[in-house]
This record gives sequence, structure tokens and C-alpha cells, in this order.
Amino acid sequence: MMRIALLGFGSVGRGIARAILAKGLDITVTGLADSRSGIIDAGGVDLAAALARKEQGGPCGNPGVSPMDVVEKAEYDILVEVTPTDVETAEPALGHIRGALRRGKHVVTSNKGPIALAYPELRALAEANGVLLKYEATVCGAIPLIHAMQEGIAGNTITRICGVFNGTCNYILTRMAAEGLTYEQALAEARDLGYAEADPTYDVEGIDAGIKLVILANTILHMETTLDDVERTGINLLSPEALQLAEDQDCTIRLIGEIIPEAGVLRVSPRIVPKVHPLVVEGTLNAVTVEADLAGDLTFVGKGAGSTETASAVIGDLLYIQSRHVQGS
Amino acid sequence: MMRIALLGFGSVGRGIARAILAKGLDITVTGLADSRSGIIDAGGVDLAAALARKEQGGPCGNPGVSPMDVVEKAEYDILVEVTPTDVETAEPALGHIRGALRRGKHVVTSNKGPIALAYPELRALAEANGVLLKYEATVCGAIPLIHAMQEGIAGNTITRICGVFNGTCNYILTRMAAEGLTYEQALAEARDLGYAEADPTYDVEGIDAGIKLVILANTILHMETTLDDVERTGINLLSPEALQLAEDQDCTIRLIGEIIPEAGVLRVSPRIVPKVHPLVVEGTLNAVTVEADLAGDLTFVGKGAGSTETASAVIGDLLYIQSRHVQGS
Repeated sequence: MMRIALLGFGSVGRGIARAILAKGLDITVTGLADSRSGIIDAGGVDLAAALARKEQGGPCGNPGVSPMDVVEKAEYDILVEVTPTDVETAEPALGHIRGALRRGKHVVTSNKGPIALAYPELRALAEANGVLLKYEATVCGAIPLIHAMQEGIAGNTITRICGVFNGTCNYILTRMAAEGLTYEQALAEARDLGYAEADPTYDVEGIDAGIKLVILANTILHMETTLDDVERTGINLLSPEALQLAEDQDCTIRLIGEIIPEAGVLRVSPRIVPKVHPLVVEGTLNAVTVEADLAGDLTFVGKGAGSTETASAVIGDLLYIQSRHVQGS
Repeated sequence: MMRIALLGFGSVGRGIARAILAKGLDITVTGLADSRSGIIDAGGVDLAAALARKEQGGPCGNPGVSPMDVVEKAEYDILVEVTPTDVETAEPALGHIRGALRRGKHVVTSNKGPIALAYPELRALAEANGVLLKYEATVCGAIPLIHAMQEGIAGNTITRICGVFNGTCNYILTRMAAEGLTYEQALAEARDLGYAEADPTYDVEGIDAGIKLVILANTILHMETTLDDVERTGINLLSPEALQLAEDQDCTIRLIGEIIPEAGVLRVSPRIVPKVHPLVVEGTLNAVTVEADLAGDLTFVGKGAGSTETASAVIGDLLYIQSRHVQGS
């Protein structure tokens, strides 16, 4: 039996709760909090009841219990930090993760802020406390990309990572090419379908893709980078004519993120790519090619977002920790 | 430091030896054997010298030392079994693996025979002896597919696996479509390039792909299957006209292996697939789509064969075991 504290009960947190219930996983949630309320219950929070309360617009727990209360007072093996990302300060997630690591608790997170901004510190803190910090869900949703690089092709030197890291941009580009829509029309459609936020800056200007590059560079490629190191061009200035020109050559345009460690390059930009290229995926999919010295080119394609898909990555990390560290498992 | 015994010094075994030398991995080979000779040396076999002997057509070691001598007498942490596959009897690899597991040694293998024919027995033997049996290299070369399914998306239920599992067939089909070659012409070209054996039956009749399906079914999907359970049609009867017909519909033909666990289906057959389908890869590449309940569809593309690529998978497994089990690591 694994005991987790779950911070964040929005789309991702609820996706995790639903997966635990639906699959009957041997996981007990001993602490739960959203930004407004929390519950600490060593006997196990009633997840179905919390989901029901939240879906009726209520709080998930008691207004007197904060996320930090859960971090510091609940009894758990693993903190699951899935609150919304703040790429400027990484807070409040950074404080939650530090607090759990200092208590000697493992951490699994989908929150890009702390991993992009403070990985060296957090990793050192985890090591000093003999626990693990896992973050598969921060990059490319359901694709087990970090697992693949850290374990599957361990022993390889990675010479380049290149891919489609943002599903919102990929959806917009797919629709502009397929229907001749303008950027504004395709963005409006993406908003209607819930693929784009009211303020789409974070996605369409390549910030989200850039943050993912920073995470891969700092955690896998032993680089020390920040978002400022990413050369970044978004898709917001692309015209339907540019897509048509690409189309005329059996090509299309994709927002490609690229890391070349040896050259110190991190770059996000729209690029013309042949339609048969493995990175040309449709709709909200993500696709990443990893160039490795022994394995050669490996390409991974899958869903980069979504509550169930993110839950998949979080649960993979939980089971990874359980198989190695959790007592009595 | 990790001590391995290496059985098999053909293309794969030499690829592993070269990777150990080139990357300066902290691995000592305390036993080495091919079918004709062997060496046992607790201080570490001189791999460069063994490679040089072999490349001059000589034996890798002493004619008086057999592979079984190495299994039983060498001091090692992990047996690396990369002798040629026999899909009928799995021997002599099966005996080597049993011998190592009984001695309480971990095993890493690229040999499909023992995993396809005797996985339940070998796994039980490994568990009884508190050691690991890893076999990433048996399916799709450098693609860390088994890692991804066992660890990356742990917690998911896999509902279907579908893919291009044989690079030789994929090369032949790619060339038939691109150049209008007949099957015989494309096969001759594949032979010239070393992609096809003198007797191509194993590849072109779908036996190799079928064996890989059996391995995935038995080791990942908890099925109990043999090659006889695989509905199997090869590519040897395909005409250029069939490929042209597919082409006329913006499609092509690929040899697709498929497992649907719930229906008990294992199937290898040429299928018409749209050219933009993620499984339509070129040349000798492999591509596999895994359908999982939480993660959705995940597609993996990479090199399915080659000595360096297979070494990548073997070394990934070695480091996996080392990070968990080898003393002093």
C-alpha cells in the first residue's frame, strides 16, 4: 500500500483521483488540497466524495486546511504536486516540494515551474534526504520520454532532441493547413474546443515549449539553462500564405523545439518540414525525436496533454517509486 | 564496477564489446565465449585483443573453454546471452540462461528463443534466485519498448499493440513501392546490403515478427502463446501491382504485427495503410503503436536491428540492473 498526499484538484488532480478509483490501485490518499481547502485523514480521504463536492462547485475539503498543512502534517510516502504552473516563481509548488523533500518524502510532480527553475537544488535536497523526485508528466504528457532517456537508453550519449512539444500550437497549425484558416480563426477554434487558454501567449509564443526544453536540458542533458537561453519564435505571426507555400512543396509548418547540447543551442521556432517527416503529427499530438550515439534516432509520438494522459505519467512515476522504495510493497 | 560474462561474439557481442571500450563503461568482462572458444579471467578479459583476434578470423579465446564453462565457472554479476536465436529449441541459449539464473546471476539477453519459448519458467527461476532477467534487445532493437511498457506506462492496461516489427520486410516493401521493383528484385537488393539472410524465410514469412509478438504477449500482456498461435501471412507473394493499387489511394503496404489481448488475437500480415499513418516508416526502421487505457496511443519509431543498436538495448538493461542490484554500485 502506498500513501500519497495530493496537492492540486483541478483537471490533473481529479484525473489522478479518477484513475486511482477506476483502476482500484492500492493507493491511499492521506492528504488532499486545492488552493482553497484541504483534508488530512490518515485513514484515507474518500476520493469519490471529494470529486463529487468539487464537481458541484464546492471545495475539495476543509477551508481551514492549506496545502502547506498537508505537506507538513499529513502522513504519506509520496507527495503528488499537480497545482498550476507558475513559470516566473514556481510558487507555491516549489515550497510544497521543498517541504516534502525535507520531511524525507518522495515527490512526483506535473508542475513545470519547480523543475525548470530549481531542479539542481531540488535534486540535491532529494538525494540528501534519500528520496526520489520524479517529473515525467512535465514534458509531453503521456509519452514516457524522460523514462526512456533516463532508463531505456541509459548508457547512450544524447546528441540532439527535436520535437513538437506544444499540442495547442500543433492543433492551430494543423487546422490552418487543412482548412486554409487564418491564425486567428484557428486559435478561436482551439479556444472553443478547450485546447487554448483565454490568454494564449504561453502556448503560441513558444514559452511552454521553451520551458520543456529547459527541463530536458537541465535534467537529462546536464546543462544549466533558463527560459532566457531559449531562442524563441512563436506561431502568432504565421500567415495562411506561408502554410500554402509549404504545402506546394509537399511540406507543412510545425513549431519545433530543438536542443543541441554540444552547441549549447535551445531553440523554438516554426519550421518547414516535409509532410512525411516523423515529427509531422496531427492535431494536439506531441512528437519527439531523440538522437543518441548507440540507439540512433528514436521518435516518440503521443498525447501531450489531457487529465487522463497526465495521470498516466504521474501513476507511472508513483509505481516506479513504489517498486524501489516504498516500505511493505 | 559491474562484472559480466558475455556469450556470443558475433555482430551483437562485438557491438557490445566495442561500446564498452568506446564509452569507457565501468564494466569488466570476466568471461567471454563464442561457439568455438572461450576465456575466463577474473581480472578482466582484454576486449580489444579479443576483438582483434576475431576480426582476423580467429577464435575469441581458448578452444578448451565452452560457453557452459563460462556460465558455470566464471565470476560475474550478469550473464549477457547474445548467441544466435534458435526458435525451435531455444538452445543452447536456454541452457546458458538456466545455468546462470540457478547460480543466482542476473541475465540480459538479445536472444528471442528462450524468451519466446520459456519465459514463465525463466522468470520463476529468476525470482526464486532473487535476480533479474531482462530482454529489451529481443524486440525492436534500439527502441526501449519493453522498458516503456513495463515502467514508463506502468499502471496502464494495454489494449492493443500494433507495429512494423521486421526491418528486412519493411526495406523490401519500401523499395518495391519506391522503385516498382518485384519482390525478388527487392529481396536481392536487401541481400546485397546485408539486410536479408541467404535463406530469407525467417523474415519474409513473418516468423521473426511473430516471435516478437509472442514475446510481447507472454511477457507484457500476461498471455500464454506460442508461434503456432500467430495467424501469419508473409510478404513473399506480394506483387508490384498490389503496391501500385495501394499507391493509387495514397496508401502503401506494410507487414503489420498486431496483438489484441482481449480477443486473444496475434496476427502478422501485409496491410494497406495510409501513407501518413504513423506506422508507415521507411527502410529498415521499426515502428510500434501501443494503445493504453490512460496514456492513449503511443508510437515508438527507431532502428530495429544492427549491432550498435542492439548493444544500446543490452547496455540499457545492464545499467538498469546495476542501478538496482549490483553490489557496490
